Amino acid sequence: MIEDKNPQRTPLSELGEFKLIEHLTAQFKINHKSTVLGIGDDAAILNPSKKQIVVTTDLLVEGVHFDLSYVPLKHLGYKAVMVNISDVCAMNANATQITVSIAVSNRFPLEALEELYAGIETAARLYNVDVVGGDTTSSTSGLIISITAVGEVEEDKVVKRSGAKPNDLLVVTGDLGGAYMGLQVLEREKEVFKVNPQNQPDLSMYTYIVERQLKPEARKDIVDLLKELDVKPTSMIDISDGLSSEIIHICKQSNVGVDLYENKIPLDPQVISTCEEFNIDSTTIALNGGEDYELLMTISQEDFPKIKGNPNLTVIGYMTEAERGMHLITRAETKVPIIAKGWKSFNENEKQ
Amino acid sequence: MIEDKNPQRTPLSELGEFKLIEHLTAQFKINHKSTVLGIGDDAAILNPSKKQIVVTTDLLVEGVHFDLSYVPLKHLGYKAVMVNISDVCAMNANATQITVSIAVSNRFPLEALEELYAGIETAARLYNVDVVGGDTTSSTSGLIISITAVGEVEEDKVVKRSGAKPNDLLVVTGDLGGAYMGLQVLEREKEVFKVNPQNQPDLSMYTYIVERQLKPEARKDIVDLLKELDVKPTSMIDISDGLSSEIIHICKQSNVGVDLYENKIPLDPQVISTCEEFNIDSTTIALNGGEDYELLMTISQEDFPKIKGNPNLTVIGYMTEAERGMHLITRAETKVPIIAKGWKSFNENEKQ
Repeated sequence: MIEDKNPQRTPLSELGEFKLIEHLTAQFKINHKSTVLGIGDDAAILNPSKKQIVVTTDLLVEGVHFDLSYVPLKHLGYKAVMVNISDVCAMNANATQITVSIAVSNRFPLEALEELYAGIETAARLYNVDVVGGDTTSSTSGLIISITAVGEVEEDKVVKRSGAKPNDLLVVTGDLGGAYMGLQVLEREKEVFKVNPQNQPDLSMYTYIVERQLKPEARKDIVDLLKELDVKPTSMIDISDGLSSEIIHICKQSNVGVDLYENKIPLDPQVISTCEEFNIDSTTIALNGGEDYELLMTISQEDFPKIKGNPNLTVIGYMTEAERGMHLITRAETKVPIIAKGWKSFNENEKQ
Repeated sequence: MIEDKNPQRTPLSELGEFKLIEHLTAQFKINHKSTVLGIGDDAAILNPSKKQIVVTTDLLVEGVHFDLSYVPLKHLGYKAVMVNISDVCAMNANATQITVSIAVSNRFPLEALEELYAGIETAARLYNVDVVGGDTTSSTSGLIISITAVGEVEEDKVVKRSGAKPNDLLVVTGDLGGAYMGLQVLEREKEVFKVNPQNQPDLSMYTYIVERQLKPEARKDIVDLLKELDVKPTSMIDISDGLSSEIIHICKQSNVGVDLYENKIPLDPQVISTCEEFNIDSTTIALNGGEDYELLMTISQEDFPKIKGNPNLTVIGYMTEAERGMHLITRAETKVPIIAKGWKSFNENEKQ
């Protein structure tokens, strides 16, 4: 489907490890005042001055987290950075630096890694993070990307998963389920391609959801918006595994329950129409789909006037005493317990 | 050779990703005042107060960096932490936190990961670093370990690779070549084992060098010693790829040359005897072996009285003007250019 159109294929062994790292990282610029020293020493040096720092890390493995038959390497590099920045945003912090480690097998030519790093560079530039270190090595099979992100936050601004209180409002950004339905479309086209490699897929009906899957954006803008609105959420988490799973994290870590309203869950029309086409229930997708990288937060009721009517923020429920449990209130007004069916990589793998 | 003797084998899929992380990380304790929040949120929160922080990351890949047929998982976990702490030490900093990400295939039972994490926990406890985050996921093949270490250092104490000056002394800690010769012994025993699996290897003659390979120690003690001696090196690097390679890094980044004296390179008697047994030149091994995780530094001549006679520190040469180049002065008093033959993973892999 999406092929490497670059006819040049330079084997990695031509460069050796040091030269490869040098070559791939030459394009990275240092912008943050807090970056004292970037790539090229035993470690990077950062000076967060008086702020607290947050640190988060994610590992992406070929064949488990991504399928290179339909994920362009540039998008993959971009997404790998977003996944980490999203975690930093979920702490109400600003991402400032990342380290990027990759392991690749020799089947990847230099030009493929250049594509991957171009995506990383674009993400770092657009989200204003400095790439300050990393490691590049070979693997016996496939591509592995490990990114660690560092962010800064003033001590009184940091938001954990554990601060939600009964009666707080449950608020989500953007809309849900798009990334998962985008994946379904791409998987279907892959099967078509296997049968008929001449077939050119027409994805024009699915542009939004395919982009949600291939090129998610971390909600850095929400961290800025919350500051502007003078709202500090009582708890926050990013939606990587699915709404159910993240709600359960907040409830357990805050020791609260929740009533989630099915009819409030924000869905894009393209998600609804694609769910109909695939004959899947859109609420199930929103609850369990994952990879939307939206933010889920709880806010105090007294802050409601500040967020009311804001198109970026949707109230989807409210927190209760822990004893009341975690429930979805369906459109038919029945109460269904919320259970996590999030993406479980070990089970997924077993099925293969 | 070294087998998993635990008869219990719990498949990873029995736990699922969240429970697995919880199970493996339950043993980790938070000790550092600067760790505000550890594992369990979107990111860890650190408060380095007025210090600078250093960040470094390393990726270890099965079949490239380690061979599980002779590396016990507990040692591997320990070593993976050491490799990163060593980089922090090379900045003259104190390691304070690490994040640990692993990808494993389903061929590993839970008990194997428990062994790996026991090694990580031991290293973290002995070197006083908090494990504050990470990621655990499946891989389509083999084991991958990605560790990021964070350290603290006062602004005026940080040592880079780039500060060496002509006439500075070149100083190395400990002795060199042991880790590489330990690997040679282990590789030989593996071949013997393939032919005769009943053979019990006698490694008693090689205990020091095998331990150097399997269980290296980061020279955190040297950071403390330098403080005690009131010596701030002008440059420093840890020896992961081999003495030649690290000397070249310092020379290039400091824009100096070097005269290195062959007869000054510290070698353990076991390295010398094993080199004789394998019919390899011990200087070649010290120069190119790698993985010793000793520290290589340059210090100003006026600091020489402070380090003189210290058994941990050996002067092995001195820095020159860059135009004089980088040379080894052999025992026969000939000058040989220093070239990097360090461990190049892409080439290594190609040979396989």
